[in-house]
Amino acid sequence: SDGAPELSSPNGDYTFGIGGRIQYDFSGTTGSDYNSRNITGSEFRRIRLDAHGKVAGWLMYKSELDFAGNSVGIRDMYLAAQKNFELGKGVVYLGSKFSDSGLDGRTSSKYTWFTERNTVANAISLAPGAYNVGVSTAFYGKHDDHISFAVTNGSTNDSNKSSDNVLIRSRAHWDPINTGNTIVHLGANGYYEDYSSGHSGFSDRTIIADHYNGNLRVEGPELNADSSTSYGFELAGLTGPFAAGAEYGRLDVNARNGGTDTHIDAYSAQVGVSLTGEKFGYSTKQGVWTHPDVAHPVTQGGIGAWQLMARYQAVNAHHSAIYGGGTGHGTTVGLSWYLNDYMRVLLDDTLWQTDNRSGSYTGVDNGNTVSARTQIVF
Amino acid sequence: SDGAPELSSPNGDYTFGIGGRIQYDFSGTTGSDYNSRNITGSEFRRIRLDAHGKVAGWLMYKSELDFAGNSVGIRDMYLAAQKNFELGKGVVYLGSKFSDSGLDGRTSSKYTWFTERNTVANAISLAPGAYNVGVSTAFYGKHDDHISFAVTNGSTNDSNKSSDNVLIRSRAHWDPINTGNTIVHLGANGYYEDYSSGHSGFSDRTIIADHYNGNLRVEGPELNADSSTSYGFELAGLTGPFAAGAEYGRLDVNARNGGTDTHIDAYSAQVGVSLTGEKFGYSTKQGVWTHPDVAHPVTQGGIGAWQLMARYQAVNAHHSAIYGGGTGHGTTVGLSWYLNDYMRVLLDDTLWQTDNRSGSYTGVDNGNTVSARTQIVF
Amino acid sequence: SDGAPELSSPNGDYTFGIGGRIQYDFSGTTGSDYNSRNITGSEFRRIRLDAHGKVAGWLMYKSELDFAGNSVGIRDMYLAAQKNFELGKGVVYLGSKFSDSGLDGRTSSKYTWFTERNTVANAISLAPGAYNVGVSTAFYGKHDDHISFAVTNGSTNDSNKSSDNVLIRSRAHWDPINTGNTIVHLGANGYYEDYSSGHSGFSDRTIIADHYNGNLRVEGPELNADSSTSYGFELAGLTGPFAAGAEYGRLDVNARNGGTDTHIDAYSAQVGVSLTGEKFGYSTKQGVWTHPDVAHPVTQGGIGAWQLMARYQAVNAHHSAIYGGGTGHGTTVGLSWYLNDYMRVLLDDTLWQTDNRSGSYTGVDNGNTVSARTQIVF
Repeated sequence: SDGAPELSSPNGDYTFGIGGRIQYDFSGTTGSDYNSRNITGSEFRRIRLDAHGKVAGWLMYKSELDFAGNSVGIRDMYLAAQKNFELGKGVVYLGSKFSDSGLDGRTSSKYTWFTERNTVANAISLAPGAYNVGVSTAFYGKHDDHISFAVTNGSTNDSNKSSDNVLIRSRAHWDPINTGNTIVHLGANGYYEDYSSGHSGFSDRTIIADHYNGNLRVEGPELNADSSTSYGFELAGLTGPFAAGAEYGRLDVNARNGGTDTHIDAYSAQVGVSLTGEKFGYSTKQGVWTHPDVAHPVTQGGIGAWQLMARYQAVNAHHSAIYGGGTGHGTTVGLSWYLNDYMRVLLDDTLWQTDNRSGSYTGVDNGNTVSARTQIVF
Repeated sequence: SDGAPELSSPNGDYTFGIGGRIQYDFSGTTGSDYNSRNITGSEFRRIRLDAHGKVAGWLMYKSELDFAGNSVGIRDMYLAAQKNFELGKGVVYLGSKFSDSGLDGRTSSKYTWFTERNTVANAISLAPGAYNVGVSTAFYGKHDDHISFAVTNGSTNDSNKSSDNVLIRSRAHWDPINTGNTIVHLGANGYYEDYSSGHSGFSDRTIIADHYNGNLRVEGPELNADSSTSYGFELAGLTGPFAAGAEYGRLDVNARNGGTDTHIDAYSAQVGVSLTGEKFGYSTKQGVWTHPDVAHPVTQGGIGAWQLMARYQAVNAHHSAIYGGGTGHGTTVGLSWYLNDYMRVLLDDTLWQTDNRSGSYTGVDNGNTVSARTQIVF
Repeated sequence: SDGAPELSSPNGDYTFGIGGRIQYDFSGTTGSDYNSRNITGSEFRRIRLDAHGKVAGWLMYKSELDFAGNSVGIRDMYLAAQKNFELGKGVVYLGSKFSDSGLDGRTSSKYTWFTERNTVANAISLAPGAYNVGVSTAFYGKHDDHISFAVTNGSTNDSNKSSDNVLIRSRAHWDPINTGNTIVHLGANGYYEDYSSGHSGFSDRTIIADHYNGNLRVEGPELNADSSTSYGFELAGLTGPFAAGAEYGRLDVNARNGGTDTHIDAYSAQVGVSLTGEKFGYSTKQGVWTHPDVAHPVTQGGIGAWQLMARYQAVNAHHSAIYGGGTGHGTTVGLSWYLNDYMRVLLDDTLWQTDNRSGSYTGVDNGNTVSARTQIVF
């Protein structure tokens, strides 16, 4: 959390800090055959506050809440212990932890290239929830690699009248090339979810353009799920001011009581160039996108860091003739302006198509959505 | 935010602070013909916490939430840029900003003379919401004057299934006389609201005595609105320990689909005297009431600042024979005790009358309401 | 609030601090005749954040919220004035204050011996709510004794459409023996509640094993209450590494409109031994359990403080043939590990029986529940 105060004991073993992020979005859509999809408005996408700190050199905690939409959401809320080994650093988290789901899925919402994550993240990786509650572990190697493993159950807003779903999740990445100027990222991820009879509803409902417009989703009916399995692959590369990333993900959902199984697959590819020369931000430790180091902050009289990006993404749940899943794709051109390390403005334009077989917006429908975001991190 | 810590970088360009306000109210009503209006109880009227700061000399942010009623409400939540010009200072706010609606309407809830704002604020100025989400601007002149202009859409808890309402709002004030001991305030305000078909419900529901008693409102049925226009005038004056203020406001509501239009008007006048000699608080910059400078704080062994005040206010939505709006008026005598700059106790007694033509409390009804508040600001 | 920063003015009269507690629980039940009672899951039991401070040597405030369950709950939210007298110290609280209800009921949730309080606290003491909103007072004597008295109305989430319930509550304790190594605690408590016609619903719904499992309650139907009266007795003792406590409570509920009255009684006894030698924590000032002083904190390479405890508890609302209240009892063995003064792990195993006459789980039903908690206080 840049900027906000961090207090520390003399030996640095004990720290306490406060942080937060605010994202304020504008959205406008035109061109849909459905009038109620051609809507305009603004919203606070995220309003997060957190307290975090260390209680010993090896023991940390974080308590983070989100207040967007005039409601409370529990985000990171954990106790974490870390230990250095010969081969790297191991961390164990107990509580609610942002899941290590994929390249775009694991990237902080502060630093995604576009206002919303890609279809692989939204349709596949995040299906069991972006925050896993239970035990999460990660091992960060010394050769630009990491592997994570989590055994969790349920989310923080499940009912207390039935058992929670059990989720096993893993992800690994390795950067086989890292010359400083050039990096190649390889990654793989997957999970297995065992649905409790009390929380067995599954449906695909994937963001295809932006979050504000709640009518603009690729969606299918609710399926009475017994278990699901996913896997995904990640490929990305950076060289100088250029960066690119591609992801594929597949989710198999097994129905309860002899119902019809189905599967969803999604893919996405994005390319970007930094107009002001700073490299795209990327963490070789975690294998995720992060923010560029702004060379000339606006708050010091500079012009900030400017990035121009494009993305093509698609999601397909048309595989089952019986389960009426949807399909859709979108092409986004985006401009990102980091005024400094803690302020950012984004502008996205997305040409999208959805082809739903259920819900209020069935059949092939096309449109254009403009999204803008102002963000401050403290 | 008085009292709570404010951290600052050595050059003062970067600051971070935490603030809040807590208001705990008691309410008791007698004399109504309706038993369910003669109720007694207490509530937390406001529980606010905020983080705020500067990220550069010209760039500020504020993130404020309200937790009263066991729910989350977004209040000030903005990024603001300011610049000094030859004629004064300009500020632009992006996000959610307390609206510059009128003399009482714009006065902070910490410093209103009585526990609740007047009918002009509650029935006219605040109809589109006390917080405007979008772009708000203000220009503070060098001659005790200011003008504001805001273009906003929606509120923070609108549905994401339809477009937000668009609102254009402006207010200006000027103090033609300001001798230090004597101030005369002139002000004007107005707005235009374009209702989205998804958020077209309008109804008058005006507080006539206090907030706790939810049955004690001047109220009318919901109207399917297409647009509305308001204007208002403000006159106030202070001399020595005396202060007075008067406001008038009118709201025209145009119905959708050839329905019946209606209008509401409201007026209010209040006078006060400081028993302990301190002048009433008034900001010549913003044209609003604020707190007195307490000469002898209780926390330093003094008696604090005591103010005695009276107000007459009325609201009238009886203009349309078809739209069944209500009417009502009230006379309040109030005592305000500022223990110091951040603690306050208020005691109000209101004789009120409502004459509703719809809802559960129709016909002429009279009663008396005692309201008390304890407040701390940190 | 251990650990989190506390800022103070040079003379110490003005302070500001931030604190919080996080409790993350796991729960698993087996052996019930009802499948939906044999459930497993985890939850955040409490997520609390507070701001607190002194605004003068004698004047304090606290503003505490709970965010568990993705909702907002107001907890301590008060202004408090204290004064030293010849015989002791008096404190008056205005606002929402954790009620002084009984030995286990008044013990902070940070320091209860088991994950949940006993049946006396849950069925009797806390029936009118754990937080009382109004005026609470306490007088702390100079001979290990105190007495409290509160006149309050309603809770923080009552509707504003009817009067709040009025509650009068008192508790006193005295430690006739206090040699430092040996303490004997005597206590008594009671309250009278006058139900408003708008808030007249009463039902017994008592936790018998843990909180996660919402199906595991001793419960009865809703009764239309006119008033209720309770009283309770407390006996506890500590000597060296041993501690024990017993409580009895009775609640009489008088029905409205000539309905059938009923009463509930509950009792509980618990014994404990400190495996690592530290005395059990107990406050002779307030007459409540608190945390042990951890001799060898884990964060300093030690093993922390370990306590082994057992409890038998019961609740009985079978007294009325007409009102179909429930009955139940449970035996818990618990292990508590204080890693240091602000971190704790609890493990409980409870053998329980319920015999409900209404609701979804009627008749005699037995089971076993394992509960675990990880807690951090900052």
